[in-house]
Order: sequence, then structure tokens, then C-alpha cells
Amino acid sequence: MNQSDIQKALNNLEERYAKFKEMNLKLDMTRGRPCTEQLDLSNGLFSAIDKYGYKTENGIDCRNYGGLEGIPEARRLFAQILEVEPDEVIIGGNSSLNLMYDAISIALRFGTGPNSKPWSHYPKVKFLCPSPGYDRHFAMLENFGIEMIAIDMKKDGPDMDAVEKLAAEDEGIKGIWCVPKYSNPDGITYSDETVDRLAGMKTAADDFRIFYDNAYVVHHLTDNPDRLKNIMASCKKAGNPDRVYIFSSTSKITFPGSGISALAASRSNIEFIKKHISFQTIGPNKLNQLAHVHFLRDLKHIEEHMKKHAAILRPKFDLVLDTLERELGGKNIAWWNRPNGGYFISLFTLDGCAKEVVKLAKEAGVSLTGAGATYPYGKDPRDRNIRIAPTMPPLNELKLATELLCICVQLASYRKMLENGDCA
Amino acid sequence: MNQSDIQKALNNLEERYAKFKEMNLKLDMTRGRPCTEQLDLSNGLFSAIDKYGYKTENGIDCRNYGGLEGIPEARRLFAQILEVEPDEVIIGGNSSLNLMYDAISIALRFGTGPNSKPWSHYPKVKFLCPSPGYDRHFAMLENFGIEMIAIDMKKDGPDMDAVEKLAAEDEGIKGIWCVPKYSNPDGITYSDETVDRLAGMKTAADDFRIFYDNAYVVHHLTDNPDRLKNIMASCKKAGNPDRVYIFSSTSKITFPGSGISALAASRSNIEFIKKHISFQTIGPNKLNQLAHVHFLRDLKHIEEHMKKHAAILRPKFDLVLDTLERELGGKNIAWWNRPNGGYFISLFTLDGCAKEVVKLAKEAGVSLTGAGATYPYGKDPRDRNIRIAPTMPPLNELKLATELLCICVQLASYRKMLENGDCA
Repeated sequence: MNQSDIQKALNNLEERYAKFKEMNLKLDMTRGRPCTEQLDLSNGLFSAIDKYGYKTENGIDCRNYGGLEGIPEARRLFAQILEVEPDEVIIGGNSSLNLMYDAISIALRFGTGPNSKPWSHYPKVKFLCPSPGYDRHFAMLENFGIEMIAIDMKKDGPDMDAVEKLAAEDEGIKGIWCVPKYSNPDGITYSDETVDRLAGMKTAADDFRIFYDNAYVVHHLTDNPDRLKNIMASCKKAGNPDRVYIFSSTSKITFPGSGISALAASRSNIEFIKKHISFQTIGPNKLNQLAHVHFLRDLKHIEEHMKKHAAILRPKFDLVLDTLERELGGKNIAWWNRPNGGYFISLFTLDGCAKEVVKLAKEAGVSLTGAGATYPYGKDPRDRNIRIAPTMPPLNELKLATELLCICVQLASYRKMLENGDCA
Repeated sequence: MNQSDIQKALNNLEERYAKFKEMNLKLDMTRGRPCTEQLDLSNGLFSAIDKYGYKTENGIDCRNYGGLEGIPEARRLFAQILEVEPDEVIIGGNSSLNLMYDAISIALRFGTGPNSKPWSHYPKVKFLCPSPGYDRHFAMLENFGIEMIAIDMKKDGPDMDAVEKLAAEDEGIKGIWCVPKYSNPDGITYSDETVDRLAGMKTAADDFRIFYDNAYVVHHLTDNPDRLKNIMASCKKAGNPDRVYIFSSTSKITFPGSGISALAASRSNIEFIKKHISFQTIGPNKLNQLAHVHFLRDLKHIEEHMKKHAAILRPKFDLVLDTLERELGGKNIAWWNRPNGGYFISLFTLDGCAKEVVKLAKEAGVSLTGAGATYPYGKDPRDRNIRIAPTMPPLNELKLATELLCICVQLASYRKMLENGDCA
């Protein structure tokens, strides 16, 4: 487009933008929250204990104290989901984020095993942070004072050349965040090669840990879901059985905030973490664990249940993707992924436009996740990534919000191009 | 008694002990667990959400994310219980122990307020530990590497002369553990004077905190319950509004491990702790909070509910106390409290006998809380305190266990007296 084409397009976009403003919208697309119809799928949980009892299969009364590692049937359920053994699983409370926090907190204070040095005794603790990534992962590290090193995300996972190089040369690098399946926000699933390289790479730190947040392990959107290689098997095969902590939860299977969480790791990791958690709590909410097992039963039944989620979510993702394609397709000002699962669509604008897009949308009544939030320290170096969370709003609102978003992307892009003289 | 009286008594006791051994008992009195009849009192919780809905009074859907500080009606309920304002309360997960752990962890890592120094930056962090006390409080401090200073328990609470002297002179002393009502294990309730002195005393550390574990706040055993002065009011009056963290839970009101917990503190304390917890979790299990409010309603209803607990527990406490009186009364070898509430009876033997008593009981099939567990580092300096937990066993088992305990106390005492030549 030449300057006058752009100016003409801008005039038209500004008119459309003004009309949106007049609608006084108040739409929220900031977080990956399930919608009401999804929540309704799990209302059966409310009567699960009443219906099927409060005792475990081995006779434990879940109404009383005890059972730090979780009830046997819940461990078995997550062992199925995460493809590990039941005694490689601890079932936690309502928040897998809290299990991640505890794992880092324990490592900082006590190390990662009986004879290891606490991470806090090193002059500087650093984590590799594939980006864009999950803002709460990064916020947690910042709160702990752990230095974050951004790693580019590629089509098949983190840039493994960079990961391997850095991990091999710096003993202060103690961990890496991974969302290996339907990654937040890109919706990418790690390739087999990526999984194997993570499991097998040389690390200068012998207490290096992969924080593997498998939040979307069964959260498919299509009938042709991504396959993720079993990292625990790869770690064992590579002789690094203790390298990975795998996290997951039912937050987006049943109820966010009222689900159950799990940590899977080698038996020695589990033993060490359990020992430290024993000073912190007498045990998790076993009634909620049992209610979940009553309701979810087994992996096969979970897969059926997740198809109901997908039936609600797919039209929402399709609507966003179709709108992006219609409004922005072929214009060379925006790029996005078409995920097979997860909770987000990751939108990339021209460099230096993301903040402006989010600001424009906000001013017209649509809240998006803050630009930059998907990068360490909230700083997107190229200011171009926007996380779209299509799950919560009803379709009619989502349509409006996405159309507005597309207008804002074009406004910001064309203005930038004019400003920079980037036109034919 | 002269030597021959003692020998005669011992012969008789050894005979009785041998008979107990033949019974092959396997009784557990180690922990303060509610019994099945108590748990049954709260089965109404199972259907509470189904019956009364999943939305809060202000329309929040408790099935979704959010609400770090807890739902308004749960905050109000604990504000009633703890005699504070609703915005001075955070509702946590299923474990008040975890809230205590988090409070200490945050203080060690970040301090107690926006401009305070992290406790871990001091050369040595110390806590005052009124003893006998709760073993898990002490174990937690030991795990954190915090030095424990034992303080004697008197009839009206900790030895305040010692507490005031130490707190005033040592900036490294950052806290004190208190179980102010029906203390664990002594069943003592702090006097008004003790509460006021704790609230008003000079402390060398301006970030000194009282960890006030009000675990048994509504857990009366008699119709004439103890009254505890409001420490939050006393702290405010003394100009030390930030001095106290109050903890409580429904663990022994509804279900241990599946209840809800609370932290009450000044608004600025709440703000600071909330900020740090926000990196650790997206929020607590609001459905469980709402179920509890549906089921427990208000303080008046809780008091009625607790009377049902008392009706189950009082015969158990009476049985133990009557047996102690009958077997050991007037013999000058053992002393105990007659608590008006709580979960324990604290038994004191002659110096140097507690470990032997617990060992003898164990060998005859009755497990008691380990001797020494009620003191910092598990070391009872005079080896004389035994915590009796009468709540869990049925009456017939409790009768046997207490009779055996009394035989063991006499065996250990008389043997000790013979050994020491402590007889007429």
C-alpha cells in the first residue's frame, strides 16, 4: 500500500473504531477462564460424595486428617493422565501454581535432594523462560528474585540450541519453565526431539530442574489432538530421572480454584518434597480428591468429558480465527497460531504495536491481557505479542471483541507505518 | 511409702501390666483427631452446595477463578468467631498450619511489611516457645532453622516475666507461638493480664509478631466455657496494631483436612501477606468456603453445633480424668489439668519418667504422643510431660488405654523412686 492507500484505510478504520466506542462495551478477555457452560459440565461433583461415599477404596475416611501424598485412587488417576507410576505422583490442593511455588521455595531453602545445596546459597539463581509464556510463571520468579533469561519459542517448542548452550555453561541456571502441550499462549506442542533434548541435555548445574507445567494435557480442541512424548520416560532413559517436575490440575477439567492438583516426579524427588511439605500442612483436602475420582473416574471418561468442553470452545476459537483471517489475513501486519488445544490464541503484530493495540482496545471497552505480560519482567522486547483468551465471553461478545481487536491492530499498524515511512 | 510398700505396689502393678500385655491391644492416642461420631455431625456439608447454590451473596460464581482473600460471607463468619472486622480476615485453604507456614516463610524472605527487612537477613532468628506446646509449631520452626527458646507455661499462660525480659532485650527474637485458648496440650486459657502484656510489651524487634493459633476458639467442653480477651483490641489499644497474626480453622468444627482456615490481622498486615500470596496461588477453594457458610451459617449456629461435639467428647474427657484421679490421685507422682475445652489432657509425671511411661505403654499396645514432642527440639528438659488425646478412641478402648497409662505411670515412678532411694 502507498501512503494514500494507508490514509484511506485509516479513515475507514477510525470510523469503525468510533462506532465501537459508542457501544460502551465492557468486555473482559484478560484471563483464560472457562465459561459458565463449561462449569455446568461438572456440577455432578456437588453430589459425588453424597452419592458414592467418603471412604477410599482402601477404607480411609476422607473426612479426617492424614494422607500427605493424596489418596491412592487420585494418584492413580493422575498417573494415567501424566503417564507415570502412581507412586511418582503427589496430589495437592486446589492450585498447581501453589505446588510450583512450593517446589521452588523448597529448592531455594533446602535444595533439591538430601545432599544438595540450597539454591539460595548460589550467588545468582537463574531460570530459562521460553517466551511468550505464562505470566504467572514469570511473576513468581520475579517475586523470588530469580533472574529470568528469555528464550525464543519456535514452532516445536523452545529454541533448544539456545537452551542447551546456556544450560551447559552456567551453573547458576537452575531451571526452565515449560508448558509443553498447547503452550500458553502459543498453543504449541513440543516435538519429540524437543522433549528428548530437554531430558538429555548437559547441564552445568547437577540440580537443574525442568518445571513442566502440563496444564492442558487433555485439553484438546479438535478430533486430531497433538501428541506429546513422555518426558519422564525420556529423562529416565537419558539417565536424568530426577530432572523433571511435572505439574497438572483439574482446574480446566472441572472447576478452576476448586479442583485438585498434581506433581509427578521421580520417587526420590517425591520423597524429598513430601518431607518438606510435611512441615507445612497435615495434608490436602482428601474429600475433594475423592469427589473428583468419583466424578472423573478414569482417563477414558475424562477424555469423553473433555470432548464436551471442546464442543463449547471450538466455535469460540473458530470465530476468533475466522475473524482474524477475514480482517487481517494476507495484510502482512499480523500473524497467529491455529492451536489444536489449550486456552489461547497468540497474536503477533508488527514490532512496536502490541501495547498500542491493547490500549486502543481498552479505550473502546475491551480488556485484553496486558501487552508484555507474556514475557519475563512484563517486557516484550519487540512489543508485538498479544494473548487472546476466547473461552470466557459468549459468542456474540467474542465477535464484537475480536472485530474491535482487528480494527485496533490495523489502526496501530498503519499509523506506525505512516510514522516510520514504511509504505510504498 | 517405704521401700517395702513400693516393692509391694510394684509387684501388683507388674501383674496388672502383664495382663494388659496379654490382651494384645493396638490403641492409638497419638494425635488430636475427632472421632467418627463427631465427623458425622458435619455430613450436611456434602449436599450444601447442591441445596443452597454455588453463588455468593454478591453473585460471584464460586466455581471459577479469583477471590484471593476469600468470599465475603466466609470472612464475615470468621470475623465473628475471632472478634475482628471482616476486612481484617483472609480465608485460606484447608490448613491453618499452611497459613502459619506461609506467614513465617514470607517474613523470612520479604519481611513483615513494605519497608521492613527480611527476617533471614538477621544473623539469627529466634522464637519464644511456651512449653509444653504444639509439636507441629516447633517442628516448623526447626525446619526453617529458627532458634527456639522454651518458655514455661503457667496457670494463666506463658511466663510473661520471662517473655517480656527476652523480647525487650533481643532484636533477633521475632515471634512467639501462642495457643491462647484451651492450649495444646495444657488446656489453659490465657488471662486478661497475659493478653494485655503480650499486646503491650516492649520488643527490641519492631517486626515482632505474635503467632496466635486460636485453634480451639469455640471448642468448649463444659457449659461454663473460658473467656479469652480480644487480643486484636488490646494490640490496637496499646499502639501495636500490627503485632498479632491470629489463626483459626474449622478443622475440628467440621472436617479435619477438608475445612477452611483463616488468618486475622491488621489491614496493613493483610495487605502485605495478600500481595505475596498472590504469586503463589490464583485463589482458595471458594466452593468449600461457601459450603461451610451454608452449613455453619453464623456464630450462634456454630455454638449450637459445638455443643454436639462437646456432648460426644465430655464423657471421654471425664473418663480419662476420673481414671487418673482414681489411680493416681493423692499419690504425688502425677499431676494433670481439668480443661474446659480443647483436645488434650496434659499429664505431668515425676521428673525423668515420661519417656519410660510412653515406652511401657507402647510395649503393651497403646501409642501415645512421643514424650518430649511438646517441647522445642522434642526435648522435655525434665522428661515429665505426656499429652493425652482422648477424642478419637471409643469409650471402651479409652478406658483400657487410660488404665494402662496409669499402671505405666506408677511402674515408672516407683521404679525411679527405688532407683533413686526416694522413699521413706
